[in-house]
Amino acid sequence: MKTTRSVLADQAADFPRWFQDVIAKAELADNGPVRGTMVVRPYGYGIWELLQEAMNRRIKATGAANAYFPLLIPESYLQREAEHVEGFSPELAVVTHAGGKQLEEPAVVRPTSETVIGEYMAKWVQSYRDLPLLLNQWANAVRWELRPRLFLRTTEFLWQEGHTAHASAEDARAYVTRILYDVYRAVMVDILAIPVVAGRKTRRERFAGAINTMTLEAMTGDGKALQMGTSHELGQNFARAFDIGYLSRDGQRELAWTTSWGSTTRMVGGLIMVHGDQDGLRVPPAVAPVQVVVLAVKDETVEAARRIAADLESAGLRVTVDDRTDQPFGRRAVNWELKGVPIRIELGPRDLAGDSATVVRRLRGSAKAAVGLAELTSTVAAAIEDDQANLLAEAAARQAARITTVRTVEEAVEAAAAGWASLPYDAVGEEGEDRLAEAGMTVRCLQRQDGSLPIGDNEPDLTAYVARSY
Amino acid sequence: MKTTRSVLADQAADFPRWFQDVIAKAELADNGPVRGTMVVRPYGYGIWELLQEAMNRRIKATGAANAYFPLLIPESYLQREAEHVEGFSPELAVVTHAGGKQLEEPAVVRPTSETVIGEYMAKWVQSYRDLPLLLNQWANAVRWELRPRLFLRTTEFLWQEGHTAHASAEDARAYVTRILYDVYRAVMVDILAIPVVAGRKTRRERFAGAINTMTLEAMTGDGKALQMGTSHELGQNFARAFDIGYLSRDGQRELAWTTSWGSTTRMVGGLIMVHGDQDGLRVPPAVAPVQVVVLAVKDETVEAARRIAADLESAGLRVTVDDRTDQPFGRRAVNWELKGVPIRIELGPRDLAGDSATVVRRLRGSAKAAVGLAELTSTVAAAIEDDQANLLAEAAARQAARITTVRTVEEAVEAAAAGWASLPYDAVGEEGEDRLAEAGMTVRCLQRQDGSLPIGDNEPDLTAYVARSY
Repeated sequence: MKTTRSVLADQAADFPRWFQDVIAKAELADNGPVRGTMVVRPYGYGIWELLQEAMNRRIKATGAANAYFPLLIPESYLQREAEHVEGFSPELAVVTHAGGKQLEEPAVVRPTSETVIGEYMAKWVQSYRDLPLLLNQWANAVRWELRPRLFLRTTEFLWQEGHTAHASAEDARAYVTRILYDVYRAVMVDILAIPVVAGRKTRRERFAGAINTMTLEAMTGDGKALQMGTSHELGQNFARAFDIGYLSRDGQRELAWTTSWGSTTRMVGGLIMVHGDQDGLRVPPAVAPVQVVVLAVKDETVEAARRIAADLESAGLRVTVDDRTDQPFGRRAVNWELKGVPIRIELGPRDLAGDSATVVRRLRGSAKAAVGLAELTSTVAAAIEDDQANLLAEAAARQAARITTVRTVEEAVEAAAAGWASLPYDAVGEEGEDRLAEAGMTVRCLQRQDGSLPIGDNEPDLTAYVARSY
Repeated sequence: MKTTRSVLADQAADFPRWFQDVIAKAELADNGPVRGTMVVRPYGYGIWELLQEAMNRRIKATGAANAYFPLLIPESYLQREAEHVEGFSPELAVVTHAGGKQLEEPAVVRPTSETVIGEYMAKWVQSYRDLPLLLNQWANAVRWELRPRLFLRTTEFLWQEGHTAHASAEDARAYVTRILYDVYRAVMVDILAIPVVAGRKTRRERFAGAINTMTLEAMTGDGKALQMGTSHELGQNFARAFDIGYLSRDGQRELAWTTSWGSTTRMVGGLIMVHGDQDGLRVPPAVAPVQVVVLAVKDETVEAARRIAADLESAGLRVTVDDRTDQPFGRRAVNWELKGVPIRIELGPRDLAGDSATVVRRLRGSAKAAVGLAELTSTVAAAIEDDQANLLAEAAARQAARITTVRTVEEAVEAAAAGWASLPYDAVGEEGEDRLAEAGMTVRCLQRQDGSLPIGDNEPDLTAYVARSY
């Protein structure tokens, strides 16, 4: 029905370019001056704040407390865990000079904080009574990316990183699994309206220093995979490297079992890639900085627009009034569509004369309806709730439709050219992973037949999800 | 009345050592591994989170939006504003290597973000319609400190930094003044219960690149001054350096007027230094992560303690149950006193038998009273409110008592050895400021006779507040 030419690159023809365009036109972010860095603009940051709040509440509900550890880590700390330093060395940013002098020991800008937090856990944990120790921090981190992309892979990103120490492997595993499901998946599904597949990473895709990495993978609009959050069992690797020990109930000195888990500003990239369409972003109401915009078409409707906005705000909605009547109506409407604001209420003199307003539902194909002013608040509140659920259902349906079940690696390579493939992991193995890498694909994760998470590296009968990824 | 020997250094004899001891014993923070950095532990971070929330709400109420700008700034950006680079150069931490290579242009870790934000303001501001542009960010910043001190002066600190652009000098001044009073002073007084003196900095104490710095100064327990927050008029200095221009209503190209304003984790240091006593921290209820601790004296009172805690929580209080009955009661009580939790409810078998609990009010000299269980919630809620007000009154009385009005610089030097001095600024001048510097003192700020803020540098009849400072 729409006839306006899109200001965005064609989503079907050039998805990455469309993604960039949405970020620019919806004023979500800009490239920073140092290569690969990002400026998160107010509208993008507003989404992040709401997401952060939802995540933070759930993290605290698991018993973890927020803390803050230093940005700068002595280079020697990273070297204490062999796999960890090997994994992160190529990505480090290093401070060599400070206060006008060369530093005796260079400091790395944290790529992640296992090492420095390990050092303090060792100080704070003495007895079994101090366990579990459940910490989280909201912070920035820096990893020098070869192919940076706004939100998805930036040299500096914002995230939460959780770090915990436990008295047993079982307790550690139970806790990170809870983080994966009750925190990460809950936020992604319930708040971001993004369906995710939960699974275990293969050995080669694991976090540097972990004995197990669990992941949540989302399907983007172009059928690729995006890793949305991970939680790691670190075994006793970091406990050994940093001497995180405790006296057990029977007076024995034991090493702790640690975990880490992180989710980043990449989730905002996921939101764009999963929900965006040719008209721009579509923001799930739960993280929409503006859930409703009331657009005054003419000067004489500005006052009424303000009254309507106040009513909607009283009902607990996040509302903005667009009173820029000196600017063309059409351009303003298109801008709100680009920004993906769920509900646009257009208020012209004719609407007002009829005691009604025009409600445009961005998440429902921009369908328009005249709604009586008396029913406006209840109609909008119901639409918001319905839109959140519908957005999830839409994404889930697409995901299901684009996962092809196959039997062999070659079939997987073919199927994953346009979506995901699922196949028996026994048919993949190390060699199969090499073959997939050649085709620019990876095993995104492994699941048991019933969808649950495998525990060891050698469980048989697992399903592998294969895809290209961002 | 207390007979326990303090685990803290004598506050009267060695205030700085007492400060360090409180931070350690109350588990607020630790020194980080890189010199001058800080680990904020969960209890200290809990205070910061509540403070941040109160500040953030008020910042948004002024119309500012949160955003996020990169940590790493090209070295050349700082050099564009002459005073700014001169002021910050000695404190910069510099990333020279990243991704395994030497960078073509070194990047500094932001000491503050005027320069990088100026660059983006120039892109985003085109017309008078885009002004004012009101931005804020919550972030970390790094300044290499020669004499670091936990919370007060750390190499890395957490803060909010606001940056705004306006169409006129008047609008810029009105806005930063509003930030000073309605945001900073409101939070300090109403939330932190810290009385502050608002004033203008002298030319030599000004922020590097500003035409005017306004400050809020608190008096510490040992009678020194602590700068709690500042807001700056930057004039057109940064607008000129970064070309932040706009088309005015009548089509002329004009330079914008910018401001910046910041408040940091130093405020937590202020809280300790203003309210702490020989028994440890005293946390104002508004920022107390734990407002009430219910301490079960024996195993048989744990269940009742949990019920009481649940009741208090339902009343909207932040409550913790201490059920560590395997540890000595006295040590647990002392620990809660060190942490400065406003209300401690002790529940022993005898209390329970009498249908009452013992309420200990930390902020009122740890006065104890038996309170019937039926009145417990209302009594505690009233005490919390009363304590917040009383803490402010106590600090205000001390501040008033320790400011001495004098006439000459020499009298000021004498008076400020044990408190603050106030004197006519006309009696100080440049030479007087040199003399004060020799005595380890500074003019903290200037006020008009009626307590309001002077506008220019050359207003006569101003009052100067002189003090030693942290």
